[in-house]
Amino acid sequence: MYYSKFFINTLKESPQEAEIPSHKLMLRAGLVNMLMAGVYNYLPMGLKVLENIKNIIREEMNAAGAQELLLSALQPMELWRKSGRDKLMSDIMITFEDRKERKIGLGPTHEEVITDLVAQYVKSYKQLPVVLYQIQAKFRDELRPRFGLVRCCEFVMKDAYSFDKDEVGLKANYELQYEAYKRIFTRCGINFVITQADSGVMGGAVSHEFLALTSSGEDKVYVCPKCNLAKAHSEEKQICPNCKEDMSSVNALEIGHVFQLGTKYSDSLGAKFLDNSGKQRSIIMGCYGIGVSRIISAVIEQNHDDKGIIWPKEISPFDVIILPLDVNEPKIFGAAKELHDGLSKLGIDCLLDDRDEKAGRKFNDADLLGIPFRAVLGKDFLNSSFLELKSRNKKIETKLNLSDIAKIKEILTK
Amino acid sequence: MYYSKFFINTLKESPQEAEIPSHKLMLRAGLVNMLMAGVYNYLPMGLKVLENIKNIIREEMNAAGAQELLLSALQPMELWRKSGRDKLMSDIMITFEDRKERKIGLGPTHEEVITDLVAQYVKSYKQLPVVLYQIQAKFRDELRPRFGLVRCCEFVMKDAYSFDKDEVGLKANYELQYEAYKRIFTRCGINFVITQADSGVMGGAVSHEFLALTSSGEDKVYVCPKCNLAKAHSEEKQICPNCKEDMSSVNALEIGHVFQLGTKYSDSLGAKFLDNSGKQRSIIMGCYGIGVSRIISAVIEQNHDDKGIIWPKEISPFDVIILPLDVNEPKIFGAAKELHDGLSKLGIDCLLDDRDEKAGRKFNDADLLGIPFRAVLGKDFLNSSFLELKSRNKKIETKLNLSDIAKIKEILTK
Repeated sequence: MYYSKFFINTLKESPQEAEIPSHKLMLRAGLVNMLMAGVYNYLPMGLKVLENIKNIIREEMNAAGAQELLLSALQPMELWRKSGRDKLMSDIMITFEDRKERKIGLGPTHEEVITDLVAQYVKSYKQLPVVLYQIQAKFRDELRPRFGLVRCCEFVMKDAYSFDKDEVGLKANYELQYEAYKRIFTRCGINFVITQADSGVMGGAVSHEFLALTSSGEDKVYVCPKCNLAKAHSEEKQICPNCKEDMSSVNALEIGHVFQLGTKYSDSLGAKFLDNSGKQRSIIMGCYGIGVSRIISAVIEQNHDDKGIIWPKEISPFDVIILPLDVNEPKIFGAAKELHDGLSKLGIDCLLDDRDEKAGRKFNDADLLGIPFRAVLGKDFLNSSFLELKSRNKKIETKLNLSDIAKIKEILTK
Repeated sequence: MYYSKFFINTLKESPQEAEIPSHKLMLRAGLVNMLMAGVYNYLPMGLKVLENIKNIIREEMNAAGAQELLLSALQPMELWRKSGRDKLMSDIMITFEDRKERKIGLGPTHEEVITDLVAQYVKSYKQLPVVLYQIQAKFRDELRPRFGLVRCCEFVMKDAYSFDKDEVGLKANYELQYEAYKRIFTRCGINFVITQADSGVMGGAVSHEFLALTSSGEDKVYVCPKCNLAKAHSEEKQICPNCKEDMSSVNALEIGHVFQLGTKYSDSLGAKFLDNSGKQRSIIMGCYGIGVSRIISAVIEQNHDDKGIIWPKEISPFDVIILPLDVNEPKIFGAAKELHDGLSKLGIDCLLDDRDEKAGRKFNDADLLGIPFRAVLGKDFLNSSFLELKSRNKKIETKLNLSDIAKIKEILTK
């Protein structure tokens, strides 16, 4: 992709409304654009990151035996009356009446809809377990939307639901999801902790929260400085049971939450099955949420410096940014195009900065965008055919011959 | 994928509410589930088809130089007041006031939002042209939702928008989109015609409509029986200018629409640029829509028989369904699993019907689901190691040795 053809516009200054680093940087780097408070459009650069995160989630959900479907955003309020959550969530749920006088809500979550759906298809223990998930826009009437993609009125969520015939099955699926969550957040490059949590409006007995450690997080947790073991603030402050170290209270941002729901929704929405003795019982449920768009905020909070973003490799919008420092010098610009085409053929996603701009501007934009590697073709290249390959996290800096494209690919993908 | 693990439940009888073949078949084959009139959930089988169509669209949009982004569903009504469409579309637009007393609408289309967005980024003719698109849920307060995915309150659309500095540029992008549309609908397996159309509430001068020919379509067009040239019903019925044949009036279903908008939205929403003489002018726009979920209906209307769906290869949820007719016979079931694993490794998407059901039931479900090929391992296989490979459209029927997996793949992907 050529920079001049890409729909991107970096900003030198942070927009006034942005308070925390990730919010400033996602606006400055042109990832998102605010349409109104709490509502964002994803520009092509931001959508690439979002899609990378979604693909990681899909891979791990499918590996854990979950199947993807897609539920509607529009929901009949009568389902919410059955579960009793129409009142419980009335403040944050967006509702309206359509021309046919149907009372409709925009889904802030989908326990009611999926339970009603599964009740129509599953009749026997032979059809259980089943685990379903979707990645979809959710809606909340948020009084104080804040911090960019952290707290929004419209946001992208992954919500999964497990249906089991007994507690043993629920616990097995819960464990599978729990382990999948650890892999997802690790692959996204997030430093996270897990706490046993309160189930809140979801209901159910056991739940765990996954939290990214970041000073701008709105939650507080106790964390052991040595082993990262975490406890919710609802508990007493303890000495770490593993290390016997004093735990400290730090800020954190919720990025995932898993719940053992039990039969709260299957009871109220009539999701029953016949067990192997022919007795009718309620399906036992779990639910598992990830704030997909919020992950972008968490990652940037944890991976940036004063110059810009430092993307973890797996979710970066591009693999490498190629900087020909003089696009009017045919040898340099020709080589940059050759590198772009050669790497693209090998499956490397390249952004070629073909703008006729000063080197300083190009370096600044590259630092801001945070692509893991930059390949610089400067004056040196004219005499040597060597380009400089440098990682955004400063750990790798090397000179390589343009002709050694296999070696370049190796470094970029290692 | 094993049938018994897949979230699917075929129906022998059509649900009462379904009127046309595609609606009956998409419910019977478990592609979608109706949540309320005009609102559908995509089950895993239906989502696979939807994703295949989305991928075809993405490939062709990107090849035509368009860049993908993702706009929000929530839109501030003040943008619609600027374009004057708040009144024009007030009957079908879903609107509400949030807790902060903001007047918000759910996007039935995105001309206002994208024009406002581009106005913030594009200032100079050097940044033009730019073509942006998204694939996203759209919302309409539909008084008479009908025919399954044909007319819905929530549906998936691809909407693209071109921004040019002059009419020449607009016409070039319009032509690129027009040609991309032809490739998209052809790859989806749709028999379609194109008419010059009325621009309606979109505004602008030139527009073309892409229509799938189907007796259940709600539009009427004149079509030449020889060359498929089509004319809108708003025109006089003519003799075909190419073939001099009498054109006949047939039913059709709109699946795409492209518009040369001109400056209607850039004028009202202030999307201006400086031309190369430093003069400020309005950006010249085009917009290009495809009813993504509606394509599923159009394809099934055109590709089915009395037994079920006949998926075109590129959008089929699976490449082949494997039918071991006796799962209790180890040689047969073992071979079926071997075939499933071998083909999966070669990138073939297989559905293995591992249910302990009678052959008749398996054949009926295979016909209903409409996967392009079925591989049958029956009694013959016990003596011969030969399986029967048959295409759903009845054009191919052959016997092949299980060990010749390369040959099997060749037939499946040809």
